[in-house]
Order: sequence, then structure tokens, then C-alpha cells
Amino acid sequence: MIVFLVFASDPDPLQDFCVVVDDSRIRVFVNEKFCKDPNLTTADDFYFTGLNIPRNTSNPIGSVATLITADIYPGLNTLGIAFARIDFAPNGLNPPHTHPRASEILIVLEGTLYAGFVTSNPNNRLITKVLYPGDAFVFPIGLIHFQLNIGNTSAVAFATFSSQNPGRINIANAVVGSTPPLSIDVLTKAFQVDKDVILDLQAQF
Amino acid sequence: MIVFLVFASDPDPLQDFCVVVDDSRIRVFVNEKFCKDPNLTTADDFYFTGLNIPRNTSNPIGSVATLITADIYPGLNTLGIAFARIDFAPNGLNPPHTHPRASEILIVLEGTLYAGFVTSNPNNRLITKVLYPGDAFVFPIGLIHFQLNIGNTSAVAFATFSSQNPGRINIANAVVGSTPPLSIDVLTKAFQVDKDVILDLQAQF
Amino acid sequence: MIVFLVFASDPDPLQDFCVVVDDSRIRVFVNEKFCKDPNLTTADDFYFTGLNIPRNTSNPIGSVATLITADIYPGLNTLGIAFARIDFAPNGLNPPHTHPRASEILIVLEGTLYAGFVTSNPNNRLITKVLYPGDAFVFPIGLIHFQLNIGNTSAVAFATFSSQNPGRINIANAVVGSTPPLSIDVLTKAFQVDKDVILDLQAQF
Amino acid sequence: MIVFLVFASDPDPLQDFCVVVDDSRIRVFVNEKFCKDPNLTTADDFYFTGLNIPRNTSNPIGSVATLITADIYPGLNTLGIAFARIDFAPNGLNPPHTHPRASEILIVLEGTLYAGFVTSNPNNRLITKVLYPGDAFVFPIGLIHFQLNIGNTSAVAFATFSSQNPGRINIANAVVGSTPPLSIDVLTKAFQVDKDVILDLQAQF
Amino acid sequence: MIVFLVFASDPDPLQDFCVVVDDSRIRVFVNEKFCKDPNLTTADDFYFTGLNIPRNTSNPIGSVATLITADIYPGLNTLGIAFARIDFAPNGLNPPHTHPRASEILIVLEGTLYAGFVTSNPNNRLITKVLYPGDAFVFPIGLIHFQLNIGNTSAVAFATFSSQNPGRINIANAVVGSTPPLSIDVLTKAFQVDKDVILDLQAQF
Amino acid sequence: MIVFLVFASDPDPLQDFCVVVDDSRIRVFVNEKFCKDPNLTTADDFYFTGLNIPRNTSNPIGSVATLITADIYPGLNTLGIAFARIDFAPNGLNPPHTHPRASEILIVLEGTLYAGFVTSNPNNRLITKVLYPGDAFVFPIGLIHFQLNIGNTSAVAFATFSSQNPGRINIANAVVGSTPPLSIDVLTKAFQVDKDVILDLQAQF
Repeated sequence: MIVFLVFASDPDPLQDFCVVVDDSRIRVFVNEKFCKDPNLTTADDFYFTGLNIPRNTSNPIGSVATLITADIYPGLNTLGIAFARIDFAPNGLNPPHTHPRASEILIVLEGTLYAGFVTSNPNNRLITKVLYPGDAFVFPIGLIHFQLNIGNTSAVAFATFSSQNPGRINIANAVVGSTPPLSIDVLTKAFQVDKDVILDLQAQF
Repeated sequence: MIVFLVFASDPDPLQDFCVVVDDSRIRVFVNEKFCKDPNLTTADDFYFTGLNIPRNTSNPIGSVATLITADIYPGLNTLGIAFARIDFAPNGLNPPHTHPRASEILIVLEGTLYAGFVTSNPNNRLITKVLYPGDAFVFPIGLIHFQLNIGNTSAVAFATFSSQNPGRINIANAVVGSTPPLSIDVLTKAFQVDKDVILDLQAQF
Repeated sequence: MIVFLVFASDPDPLQDFCVVVDDSRIRVFVNEKFCKDPNLTTADDFYFTGLNIPRNTSNPIGSVATLITADIYPGLNTLGIAFARIDFAPNGLNPPHTHPRASEILIVLEGTLYAGFVTSNPNNRLITKVLYPGDAFVFPIGLIHFQLNIGNTSAVAFATFSSQNPGRINIANAVVGSTPPLSIDVLTKAFQVDKDVILDLQAQF
Repeated sequence: MIVFLVFASDPDPLQDFCVVVDDSRIRVFVNEKFCKDPNLTTADDFYFTGLNIPRNTSNPIGSVATLITADIYPGLNTLGIAFARIDFAPNGLNPPHTHPRASEILIVLEGTLYAGFVTSNPNNRLITKVLYPGDAFVFPIGLIHFQLNIGNTSAVAFATFSSQNPGRINIANAVVGSTPPLSIDVLTKAFQVDKDVILDLQAQF
Repeated sequence: MIVFLVFASDPDPLQDFCVVVDDSRIRVFVNEKFCKDPNLTTADDFYFTGLNIPRNTSNPIGSVATLITADIYPGLNTLGIAFARIDFAPNGLNPPHTHPRASEILIVLEGTLYAGFVTSNPNNRLITKVLYPGDAFVFPIGLIHFQLNIGNTSAVAFATFSSQNPGRINIANAVVGSTPPLSIDVLTKAFQVDKDVILDLQAQF
Repeated sequence: MIVFLVFASDPDPLQDFCVVVDDSRIRVFVNEKFCKDPNLTTADDFYFTGLNIPRNTSNPIGSVATLITADIYPGLNTLGIAFARIDFAPNGLNPPHTHPRASEILIVLEGTLYAGFVTSNPNNRLITKVLYPGDAFVFPIGLIHFQLNIGNTSAVAFATFSSQNPGRINIANAVVGSTPPLSIDVLTKAFQVDKDVILDLQAQF
């Protein structure tokens, strides 16, 4: 039997809150959500912990973005907001990506980040800033943005989003690391380079 | 002659961004906003600094909430998101209040906070949690909530909101501190107490 | 196994209407809604009666607000609108409260009401008007408002809301009548009064 | 000089309220609206009177619908709600019409109304009910609906809408009374009747 | 056991997409939709074919509008967009109708169409244009509009809509062809004609 | 004096339509829009022509997408919909891009297109289809998508969008062709390739 419910938007709630009830028998089939009886909700439904714990950044890009969305934080459901902790090793990069469903505010807690985003066509302006602890930067919905740790130490930032599930598209993964891969014809023409350059790019993913 | 625009909602933008252009001749009269020519925007339009600076909490409630909305952060305009830094002295209280236009996520950076909110009628359940650094708590849109510093040190938290201008209504200020004051008849009947209690309450504001 | 749907917003419908089908086996557990087969809907699904019947106002505040929302009026489901009948005994009070999810228009049918609302911080202006039969007054979403019957007779008003489930938070019930009660520390600091005053307030609830 | 502002939606406000300021010098050019300085607003901005005054129904259809929208009630601006008083002479008809931007709740105060609406294609079901004082009926957004006074006395109803400007399209006026008129070819084919019937219809408008 | 989901609006999705899974056992009971496991979606879920095939226009009005909505095109679900192919015989008419939930852009591929819409009360202006291949015309949400083939050949147009289920109300069908029919009293008064004219109109449906 | 209006969203209109009035004196300052007096609107405000004219595709990618948005089609303003004509030379590519503010339906008129999109993290699935005349394909909001002409002839498609200004971000232009360019450090780390490959990519833009 298939059972499900997928929230289709980030509207105002129609009740104080709609805490997700997770049911493993169902979760096998789809990523559904439904509301817990409000009288059975507890403080823990609205609570999330561990944002102060450094994440392991020993990976090729030296960065980890930990998104906290309604999928793992039931109290966020229907409230139109989510957040993330981002850890950077020295020279760590949160690579160019977009959030198809949310704008983002980044707040730096530790370290020095070189952050930026690119505006849409036709201008594709790159707008960047070096950020220190206590600095905030805004990434408008859907635009390609990134952060690079340019300090000598690890860096930490919090990000907040205007959706309970902003989504994330890493440009490199999507363009040269998709499953199956984009055809050579598409990529050589898109980037106006010859086949070898594209093969070099795809070889990494 | 004065002409101006007030954004009436937190929808998706219709452009990459709409940086507020401030015009003091107009601003004197209304809190209007309009868009800067996208080609003239700079990184500073999307940048805010000083969130790491402790605020002065020497006031009767021992707490200060510094809201960063599109009014003072032009890059947030039309993006449906805003944030705040909240400082607490020992025993400091961010008193019971509502945000009429946003849900809130609170993230504790320093100290120990006793946080809670009250559900709507008919149950008016009080849902509370003690929060430590790295803990987050959600306050659904429109519900009365508060945080009390129950630690021996000062405390600091960040809050994020699902609106570029969440608004804030301090219950005590609105109910017993309005200008002009609410009539004694309304308050004695609302709280079911005699006149002296209400006069005691109003005397403080 | 129980599965159900809770409407999360007041959007435009995606069909002519979505009449709630009530299923007592489920309703025991949650306030779910789902759509009746449009071809099985009848005029009674869109019909509500009894708004002309005076309600019993013999209670401490001398007032009763009867909210008619999609919970009890299935035809309202997904239409983003609801209404209420409010009865007042002489000196009856509809106490200070907010609707977290709707603006309200009040229309007086009988009697004389002293009505008002308080704007948000920092000004907390009290805006009031004496209303007679045929007068209307607007209460913007999320703001604290009230009505007091200042005539010698009973009074009746209709209210309409911009949500199918506006919600209601009585300030007195939420602040000094919650379950469990708000801590004395929070209330004494919020209202800047000593413990005795708060105990007087809480004693009534 | 050109000045303008047109509110494009019924979203949540981004401020407590945005009272329309009317400026006849501007109104000549466009039907613009803009916000009054919140500190200059008065109770009268949120107040409307005269809903208890019977309207003159001596017209061919024996009915008058008095819409109270943000255009004439500045306090409604950005709040997503409006209302109307509808007067009926005996046998008076509020003729088949749609509201392109709102759902409606009708509440009968006096008299007996035969009310109904027609569902959309393909079924075009007619759903009707006889309404007495204290009865309410819902008309979903965009559907054709009407009310006929079938009692021996005049009738009065209040209607509320889920938009600050629901709009109104009288079917007869739009189809056979437009300026200029719809072509005979369109109407004869649409109604599958010969030219004489259409000319009879158009002759009345 | 019945399980279901009815999408209540055209908001932004909360996931990349939500492909409708159809289940005939359920469809008997409600017009539900639910999401296919994203990992099981295929290209065919996002694919629709046959728009180049002329439809049979041998019917009284000489026109066929083929609406492609989320009901028959699962990939459109939650994306807020739909489209149609409209075929016209010579002199064929797409009769006056409204879409209660969407604005429309019409693009002519073949033939010559006389297209128009009527503005709402009080002006009811008729705005028309003769359209040739490559021409587009816009019909704002909820307004009555039509297209008549005034060329000597058949005509074809594509229409796109700002909703995944715009709905359609043919004015003639709804006003004189509903089930059951609108009462003679309502129609004679609405159109200000005598009974015979109305009977002529109803006789065709 | 500066006067302006920026539409912040794609909501339902608050009037039948809001035709853009363009005023070059103002346009110098901001990309504003405002409404033409409804009584002065003409059919031409809602009309666009020339979609049947092939565009010149003699450019490096062999493709041209002609977006028709409210900026150049005033009647679309506030209606939440826009469209495009896309011309392809043999082997022409509409390169990988996103629309940050709209979902898209593509309808093929001539030729054979290989079309696809990539889902968001973590799976980054590539979903593709070969499309012939009369075929439609959906690209969900914010996802990277493309079309390649794999036929021996030129190809033509129409696209429609769920926003009056969907925006467009060409991935190649934004990632390796921005002004100023993204730093080598960011790109080498993002694509996990050495500097020479990135320089090859940037050399083309």
C-alpha cells in the first residue's frame, strides 16, 4: 500500500504548526509528511541540537554544508524557513551552487570567507565580498553563489533560507557529474571547448 | 510632491534582486522602498557587518533584540527573509512577544536560555525547552514566545525570520503600555482582576 | 493505519472547491481534511445556518465569539475565507486577542461597541472607535484588538476573516492562563511588577 | 508628471497596514494607491459606516450590490479582504455574475433568497439553496452565481470576499451589453440560436 | 483504505517535481494526486505528445479546445503551468468562456482568428484583435474571452495558462445549459427579456 | 523627481490587468513599471506579433531563445506568465541554463530536439527525451536544462513560463564567463581539475 503526503509550498500555515510524523513503514515508499496530533507535540519536535559541533571537512573540496530542513527537523514543516551550518577547512570551498527554492543569508562565525554570486543573463556580473566573523551576505533565490575560505584557519558560517526545503544544485556535479553524464556534444558546444577539455572535467566525477 | 512604494508582501522576486534605494527627501515622510539600477548595485548592498559585537543589555529587561530587516539592509528587499542578534545579560529576558508576519528559528551561540511559546486557543499550551550553545528552537508565525537567560553569564542567540519585515509586538508594551493606554474597563475584564492590579501594571510603562 | 491531509495554506483552489469529507475514525486522531467527490457535493456542503440565533453570554467576560471555519463548514475548505458571530452582554468584552493567520472586518448589527487595536513596536499606538449598527472596523492581521459593549443593551457583530482558519490567541489566557503557567520570573520581568501582582493575575485562570 | 502605484496582489502585508492616500491630482492619471504615514493614520482610516442604510432598489433587476473595497475603504489596502451589502426588492435579482479574484460568503439578514452557483465544465452543475435570515452560503472563486429574492418583502444580505478588490462581471452585461457589443456571429454560434434571439437580448442593453 | 492528496494551489514546488501517481482504486473516490518516488520517475512523466495532430472540429461550434493539465500530464503537478491546443473549422468559434484560475496567452499557428475579451464591471469594454500566424494575445485571469475563425481555412492555436488546472466555464453552457437549468425567473430578469427568448436559448442545450 | 514601481511577484492581479506604461525619463533611473489607465488601454497592449519569423541562428551555439516577458510585452504585467520562441540551426544548442523564477513547458514545432534536465543534489539524475514536432517536455523551476537539435534541419520550439519574468542563467556564461571572472581557485576546486583546464574554459568567454 502506498501512502504519502508532500507539501507543495511554503505558504502560511493553516494551523499553529504541523509537526511531521515519520512512519518508517511509509518512508520506504516515499518521502511523505503528515501532521502530528497537536496535543501530542512536545518541545523536542521544535528543537534541534549539535550546531556547535564542527563537521569533518576532509573531502576534496574541504567544505561541508549541513542543511537542516523539514525532512530532518519536523517542527519546520509548513513554516517556510530552514537553515544550515557550513564548515570550511583552510582553502575549503563551498562550490558554486544554486538553491532553486530559496534566498539565503550567510552569517560568518569563524574565519575569513571570500563569498560571491553571479547575476542572471545578460550581464552575469560577479558580486563578491571578503567576510569576517560577524559579517552577513545575501544570496538571492536561484542565483549561482559560492564561498571560499581564504584564511589560514578553518571557518564556520550559518546560513538561513526562505523555504523549508530550499534544495541545492552543485553546478559542477550537475553539469559534469550527472547520472548518466551530459553528452559530449552538449558540453563542448555549451563551453565552446574541444572534447579533451570536457573529458578532463568529466574524469573527476 | 511625494511618491513612493511600499512592498506589500514577501513573494518571490520578479528580478534577481531589488536593492532599496534610500532617498532622504522621501524617507522623512514614509518608509518607502524602490529598486536601485541593478547595474549600479555593489557587494556592499548585499553585505551587513557587526553581528559579532555584543550589544548593551543594561536595561530593565536585560536583553536587546537587534532586528536586521530590509529597512536597514537593502539587499534583503523582496527576498522574504531577515534575521536578528539577541543579547542577554544574566537573568535577561526577551519578553513574551509575537511576530505578526514571520516564523522564527532561534540558534543559541553562547549561554543558557529557557525558551518557549504558547499555542493558540483553546488549549494555550506552553511548550518550553532549555537551550545551550548549538541548540535551535522554532517559534511558529504569530505565536507568543520568549527567552530567559537562566545561566550565570551573558547569552547570545541569532534568530532568522521568514519575512523581510517580521514585525514585533511586545505583549506587555501593547497591553499595558500603549499610547494612549487601554481603558481600565477593558483590562480589568480581560484579566479578571480589580482596578488596583491593572494600575500596578500600567504604572510601569 | 491512519493517513490524512492537513491543508497548509490559504491559496487559490486548484479546483472549483474541495469540500471536506469527515471521517470519524480518523477525526479522533487528527483534524484532517480531504475532498469530497465533486459530483457528490450538495448545496448543504456550502450552507451554514443559525447565525441569527443569539448566543449565551453568561460568562465572566460577557461575550461569546462563534468562529465558523472550514473545520465546521466544509465548503470553506481551500477558499481562504471564514467568519464569526460575536454576542455581547451589556458591558461584555471580546478581550484583547490576535488572529495569527488573518485580517478581520467587524460589522456591527446591534448595540454600541468600543473597538480598537494596538500597532506593533516601537509605537504601540492604540487606535479606537465607537461603533454603532451599520459601522465596520478593520483589524489588520496579527495585531492585538478588542471590542467592549458600552451600550445598555446586548450587542451583536459579524466578523469576517482572510483565512479559512484564522486562529485566535486571547492575550490574557496565553500570558497568565497557559498550561502549564508561564514562570513567575518571565512575567515579573516582562511586566516589570513584583511577584504579588503576577500571582493576582494568574489566580484568575 | 506621471505618478502611480498599483497593488498587484492580496499577499500578507509587509507592515501593520498600508492606508491608501488619495491624491486627486494623481488619480486623474491612474488608479494608484500609496501608503499614508502610519503615524498619521487615524481610527477613521479603518472605519466605514452606513451599512445599515437600505439602498434604493428601484431598478430593472430590483437589486443593488454595494461593494466596499480598498478603493473606497483605505484601511483595507493590502489586507486581502472586502465586503458588500446587497439589497433586494421583492422579486429582486442579484444577476448571474462572477468575481474573478475572490471567493464569497453570503449571510442573509432579512428576507428569503434563492441562491445558487454553477460548477465549471464539463458538468456545469447548478447548486442552489433557499436561504433565510441567519443562513450563509459560499460561492467559490470565479464561479457564476446569483441570488433571487423569493419572499414577499425586501431582503438584505452581507457578502464578504477573500480579496481587497474581488472585481465583478455581470454575465448579461458582459455578453450582450459590452461596449462595443460582441458580434452577432459570436453570439449566435455561442448560444446556437438565430440572429433574432440575439438581437432581442442585445436590445435590452 | 482510502488515502489521498489534493493539491490546493499553484505554489512553488517544495521539491524538484511531484509527478502524479494515479491509482484507479482511489480515483473512484476522490480526484486525488500524489507524488511518485522521485527516483522512479522517467522522462515519459515529463513528456506529452500529439500536439501536432489536428482535432476533429465537426461539432456545432466548429472548434475544439484540448486542455493539457496536470490531470492528464503528471509532470505538470505543482508547477503552476498548463497548456492547450485549439482547433477551429472555418467559422469555428471557441465560445465566450472564463478560466477561473489562470491567465492565458494565445499563440496562432495557422489561420486567422478574431479574438477578444470583455473587461469587468462597470465598463465591460470589449477589446478585440484579428490575429494571424505568429501573433499572440493575452486574456487576463477570470475575464470572458473568445476566438472566432474568420478565415477560409481551418485554424490552429496554442494557449498557455498560469495554473496547472485553469478550469473552464463556457458562459452559454453555464447560463442556459446547466444541470438542472437556471430558473426562468432568474434568466428573464438577468437578461431583461421575456420568457420566450429564454426558452429559445435553453432549447439548444 | 524620481517615481517608480517594481513588481515584486507573480501574484493574482488586483485588477483586470495592469498594462505597463513606459516612460523613458523614469526608465533611466530604475527598471520600473506602472499601470496604464485601464480606459486608455487598447488591443495592441495585449498583442504581440512576429513569433512566426525565423531568427538568425548564425552564432557559436547555433541557437537563439527569444524571451517575450512583461518588459517587452506590457499586457503580461501582473499576469504571471510569459513565453519564448527558440530557433535552432542544425546541431544548434540551447545550452544548459536555469530559470530562477519559473517552470517551463517546451513545445516542438519543427525539427528534432534532444532535451533534458538534471535533478538537484544528491542524485543529479539526467532525464532526457528526443522530441519531435507536437511533443512537449516540462522543465521544473530552477533545474538545469538544455535542448540540442539532433536533426538535419533547423528546429523551432515555443516555451511558456510560469512567471512574467522567469530570468535566465546560462551555466557556462555564469561560471566561466562572468564579469569579472570567477577566481581560478574557486573553479579548479569546484571542478577538481588543474589550472590549465579552467584557463581553456575561460578563454572562450
